[in-house]
Amino acid sequence: MSSSFGQAFRATTFGESHGGGVGVVVDGCPPRLALSLEAIQFDLDRRRPGQSRLVTQRQEADEVEILSGVFEGRTLGSPIAMLVRNTDARPHAYDHLKDVYRPSHADYTTEAKYGLRNWQGGGRSSARETIGRVAAGAVARQLLREVAGVEVLAWVSSVHEIDAEVDVDAVTLDDVEATPTRCPDPDAAARIEAAIEETRRAGDSLGGVVTCVARRVPVGLGDPVFDKLDATLGGAMLSLPAAKGVEIGSGFAGTRMTGLSHNDPFVPGPDGRPRTSSNRSGGIQGGISNGEDVVLRVAFKPTGTISSEQKTVDRDNNAVTLAAKGRHDPCVLPRAVPLVEAMTLLVLADHWLRQRTVDVLPPLEG
Amino acid sequence: MSSSFGQAFRATTFGESHGGGVGVVVDGCPPRLALSLEAIQFDLDRRRPGQSRLVTQRQEADEVEILSGVFEGRTLGSPIAMLVRNTDARPHAYDHLKDVYRPSHADYTTEAKYGLRNWQGGGRSSARETIGRVAAGAVARQLLREVAGVEVLAWVSSVHEIDAEVDVDAVTLDDVEATPTRCPDPDAAARIEAAIEETRRAGDSLGGVVTCVARRVPVGLGDPVFDKLDATLGGAMLSLPAAKGVEIGSGFAGTRMTGLSHNDPFVPGPDGRPRTSSNRSGGIQGGISNGEDVVLRVAFKPTGTISSEQKTVDRDNNAVTLAAKGRHDPCVLPRAVPLVEAMTLLVLADHWLRQRTVDVLPPLEG
Amino acid sequence: MSSSFGQAFRATTFGESHGGGVGVVVDGCPPRLALSLEAIQFDLDRRRPGQSRLVTQRQEADEVEILSGVFEGRTLGSPIAMLVRNTDARPHAYDHLKDVYRPSHADYTTEAKYGLRNWQGGGRSSARETIGRVAAGAVARQLLREVAGVEVLAWVSSVHEIDAEVDVDAVTLDDVEATPTRCPDPDAAARIEAAIEETRRAGDSLGGVVTCVARRVPVGLGDPVFDKLDATLGGAMLSLPAAKGVEIGSGFAGTRMTGLSHNDPFVPGPDGRPRTSSNRSGGIQGGISNGEDVVLRVAFKPTGTISSEQKTVDRDNNAVTLAAKGRHDPCVLPRAVPLVEAMTLLVLADHWLRQRTVDVLPPLEG
Amino acid sequence: MSSSFGQAFRATTFGESHGGGVGVVVDGCPPRLALSLEAIQFDLDRRRPGQSRLVTQRQEADEVEILSGVFEGRTLGSPIAMLVRNTDARPHAYDHLKDVYRPSHADYTTEAKYGLRNWQGGGRSSARETIGRVAAGAVARQLLREVAGVEVLAWVSSVHEIDAEVDVDAVTLDDVEATPTRCPDPDAAARIEAAIEETRRAGDSLGGVVTCVARRVPVGLGDPVFDKLDATLGGAMLSLPAAKGVEIGSGFAGTRMTGLSHNDPFVPGPDGRPRTSSNRSGGIQGGISNGEDVVLRVAFKPTGTISSEQKTVDRDNNAVTLAAKGRHDPCVLPRAVPLVEAMTLLVLADHWLRQRTVDVLPPLEG
Repeated sequence: MSSSFGQAFRATTFGESHGGGVGVVVDGCPPRLALSLEAIQFDLDRRRPGQSRLVTQRQEADEVEILSGVFEGRTLGSPIAMLVRNTDARPHAYDHLKDVYRPSHADYTTEAKYGLRNWQGGGRSSARETIGRVAAGAVARQLLREVAGVEVLAWVSSVHEIDAEVDVDAVTLDDVEATPTRCPDPDAAARIEAAIEETRRAGDSLGGVVTCVARRVPVGLGDPVFDKLDATLGGAMLSLPAAKGVEIGSGFAGTRMTGLSHNDPFVPGPDGRPRTSSNRSGGIQGGISNGEDVVLRVAFKPTGTISSEQKTVDRDNNAVTLAAKGRHDPCVLPRAVPLVEAMTLLVLADHWLRQRTVDVLPPLEG
Repeated sequence: MSSSFGQAFRATTFGESHGGGVGVVVDGCPPRLALSLEAIQFDLDRRRPGQSRLVTQRQEADEVEILSGVFEGRTLGSPIAMLVRNTDARPHAYDHLKDVYRPSHADYTTEAKYGLRNWQGGGRSSARETIGRVAAGAVARQLLREVAGVEVLAWVSSVHEIDAEVDVDAVTLDDVEATPTRCPDPDAAARIEAAIEETRRAGDSLGGVVTCVARRVPVGLGDPVFDKLDATLGGAMLSLPAAKGVEIGSGFAGTRMTGLSHNDPFVPGPDGRPRTSSNRSGGIQGGISNGEDVVLRVAFKPTGTISSEQKTVDRDNNAVTLAAKGRHDPCVLPRAVPLVEAMTLLVLADHWLRQRTVDVLPPLEG
Repeated sequence: MSSSFGQAFRATTFGESHGGGVGVVVDGCPPRLALSLEAIQFDLDRRRPGQSRLVTQRQEADEVEILSGVFEGRTLGSPIAMLVRNTDARPHAYDHLKDVYRPSHADYTTEAKYGLRNWQGGGRSSARETIGRVAAGAVARQLLREVAGVEVLAWVSSVHEIDAEVDVDAVTLDDVEATPTRCPDPDAAARIEAAIEETRRAGDSLGGVVTCVARRVPVGLGDPVFDKLDATLGGAMLSLPAAKGVEIGSGFAGTRMTGLSHNDPFVPGPDGRPRTSSNRSGGIQGGISNGEDVVLRVAFKPTGTISSEQKTVDRDNNAVTLAAKGRHDPCVLPRAVPLVEAMTLLVLADHWLRQRTVDVLPPLEG
Repeated sequence: MSSSFGQAFRATTFGESHGGGVGVVVDGCPPRLALSLEAIQFDLDRRRPGQSRLVTQRQEADEVEILSGVFEGRTLGSPIAMLVRNTDARPHAYDHLKDVYRPSHADYTTEAKYGLRNWQGGGRSSARETIGRVAAGAVARQLLREVAGVEVLAWVSSVHEIDAEVDVDAVTLDDVEATPTRCPDPDAAARIEAAIEETRRAGDSLGGVVTCVARRVPVGLGDPVFDKLDATLGGAMLSLPAAKGVEIGSGFAGTRMTGLSHNDPFVPGPDGRPRTSSNRSGGIQGGISNGEDVVLRVAFKPTGTISSEQKTVDRDNNAVTLAAKGRHDPCVLPRAVPLVEAMTLLVLADHWLRQRTVDVLPPLEG
């Protein structure tokens, strides 16, 4: 199914950018978890439009309502349905897009696939769909913290040609949230902010890279074949709007090393289990977490919707020009950060629960 | 489930490197397809060890037997089970690995996850598991050719620091198979061959990048949310052994462009539907194929198993040194090519069938 | 997942009897279907409490809101989320049940499984959960009518020891809806009505049987192994509250016949395909529909919640007596009819779509 | 997928009655389980043809080979593939069935669904497919015994009009295996044996009922909505060849009782948790096991294939008569017993593992 993600911890999102609302049903969250609505809203607020001058100015409070699955502040083990109403939809702002396809956008492919589309916004491909993911991810975050102390943190590590310098081991949520760019390198952040503003004025857009780290991931998560931890993380990342690439650990740069320099040597760890003295594996070996930090990077292309004039075609296959009106992000990176975190959290919660069905019998002796 | 892939066209692999054999059950292949055993064997031969001096010298014929699902040369619509026996297993060649963890290999994580492992080879994480994928992919290839004329072709585009120049639009299977490197740029191929041989002698290993193109993919494949075509392709690629990164279309390089230069302009196509004059989207927009060639790149790290001495730990968490014996690939790239093709084929066959459940009702007028 | 049903046409329900509301997300409904909200509401009205004196007097309008997936009256191919608010919840009516387990109810097992429960009503095991099923089934009904002319009709065929005589081939929706019993045999209906009223006054409850027929089901639906059409129908029926048995065609009575008398002889059909001159198979042979009417029967036990005093235990394992207060059905049969139809519709829509991935290649000659 | 069953403990069967062989891939069995090949073979021997005069005389040793997933006698956590070769296939024995449809058999529907069929036997609908189920069930049996002491036992409780008297609480495997009928009531067994022999001579066939009990099932298995324990059990039973009905606990007979007489009173149990003083619920309430014995009954129709002459049609829709030749069971009941056990075991193993993902957080206080 296109709208469900995960096996044991399963999120099913629904909703278009225009219509009654968007939301998610989370099935499989264990019962008895004390669930904070505020923590869910906090993550949604990091995603919502209008949060700063750097993002789209659509004004949505994105206030979430929990419809089911929680009783007296605790999860019941039943599906947790969460709903966010669409309030600032301006369908007529899209009238000029009804019969024309925005380049490098989902307009044409949606219509080709389904034979119709809700042209009053991005429809199902709108970034508003990701509200459900963030809400579900915020539930996963609370579960993972409770059962394993896991922390997942993402940030903007580059925009266009501006690369940040970030200490992956030391960076904190406060560092990330210090500026509206969500780049924790203050110098790079300032340049990114200027670049985004300039680009918006120019009617253009920028892309960039988000880095994500998951700390205190238990050893043993992930399956060795199709559901490798890196495979599910990678698939999850590429399901985000505008994502065009993903790396685990050393990624593409690692292909230019040799085995001797690339391998992560094992060293005896203080608690009787092996650690590695480097982490080019990105915390995953053979598709299974090895107890080091999981580290990944996601490439987001420059936003497709821009206000400059572009060549395109209309629904009758005529060449036309288009200059998009309406509200859109000149750079998705600041708002992509909570999305990358959410998908990482969904993957980890799912694999953590699944490992409960593997680690069942007592250890062997010897 | 860790060992199944796909929804409508579903492959379930089984088998370890040592034991009775490896294989796959393909469920969901439509009936009435004329299935060529030779074509399946052809793809397996491209994957098998011992095929050239560049790869591991384990001698396996990898001859496939179809156990079920085919009658008088045609698929029955029932599961197609295929089995390849292990013949050249040398379990004692691994005795020295019984109690020690190879760096950047699955030894430690497998044991941490399962509490035991078949140390007589890579077990479930062995490259032999991919036999089932290639066999299933070869069935998918025949289906896709029959129903849509789809062609999937991959090749080695870089090894270590040697980059090939390849015309993505023109390259053919013959070009790829012209050398044991599977790099269709003859000059680069020669340098790659020399580099691999030298590396093997040095007890080291190399990584690289495989590029894959899928031609004549129909418009409309892929779902707009979690099962985007790029998300399922990306997850599939990262499920391959040693894969550390994946890019669709412009990938990471695209993040350094702006929207104006990155967007693919639509132009009126000759058959009444839009085409794009560039293909930075890699044939996928909004997670759905747009009718252009699907293009992706996969990063494979340098092989973890090397014969040079490395620092590591044993099962009792003692520091030891290890120089791997036995047969292994100094560079997985030549054998990774059919794997990348197989996973691409499995993804496309699955999405093609699933689109049959979407495109059901007659077109709307207007 | 416990809350999702179906593969290609997939319904995910959510909600408890007390809380924000109940609903469903339908994923996989093909695009371009003209969807009637009135038809969905019609089925919900047949299920809702308070519709007659025979059922629980909880007053719920059960008015459905479509949150997503529909644009200008047609399905978009995206998830159709539907929500019904809880309005007449009276949580304090259940105070006396907080620490005691109703016999033959889900109270104890829910608490044993989850370690807590929403005791303000039946929680997730409430009949209100079936609202989502009925809404989803009403979408399936419109799809099946459009693509194949399928009609699904159920009725009450017995209550307690009162057996109706019904002509399976001729009975109509009007016949069923003629009385609040939903028994289309007027004589039996009158006796059932009297029996239910008397039982309610006596503080007791009654069970019975619902029969369901699906007409114009195409040949070829269902898979020959685990997803036999009868297996998925049977599993679907037993997922309904209070269901304790299911029969396809001849059912248990057929075990007392011999093969010669039980087999359905094939006879040449007028359109060139075989028909059967009897239908003890209930329209399904080898798990696959054969083009005859699909016929099944579902046994519903007497309602567990009764107002007479019963022996039970409390949460501290003390013996206590309980006389349930609050509003409940003295006999679920009249309201079970739309539930049986809904599950039948969900199964058929799913198998119909799945058959689109089987019947792909052109017919063989000869 | 039609050929897979279960979520956490997943069996995928393959194979037709004629071809290389039949088998199963079991994915999700936890690692470190000591697995007895003899125990698997024991269950297969109870299923195999030729085991007594009462069943088909096809001679198959049905010797199972474990291809993968086991190392030094213990499960690895990887897929357990098991293969049984077809040896006594006599394809020419079916020549007379190539162009004619056996009444109440899968011949016609298979051909209608797939557009071709392996007419050399029952193909995928052959009872040989159930070999994979029994092998997988035997693995589940060993897991359930190890983790929870669960015992699953089935027997023939009626054939045609002969009803056995069996003490559900006391009956043992030895009682069941005492006669080739698998009816543990010696008097009924003798009459059943005579009836089957007589029926075979008459060219006719008989049906009957299998009863199954699962003892020491932990409280809390099963999900409250679509995956109720009774729903998954019921669907599993109806996926068996020739099954036409299933009852849990009181079943259809319970519909003729009232709530007061049908409800199972709770009484304080000796270990601090409630027990019931009767078991009309069949061990399941609200879809969740309540700690009492799970009891179910399955109706199997008289075998469709009989040697008496019957009316039918051929592939050209002409009326013909058919008297089946070849080897077939005059009554499937004796061989259905291990099948019912196998499906019950698969369901319970799956739900047991799934409950591991529910019961995660510490109990609440109070």
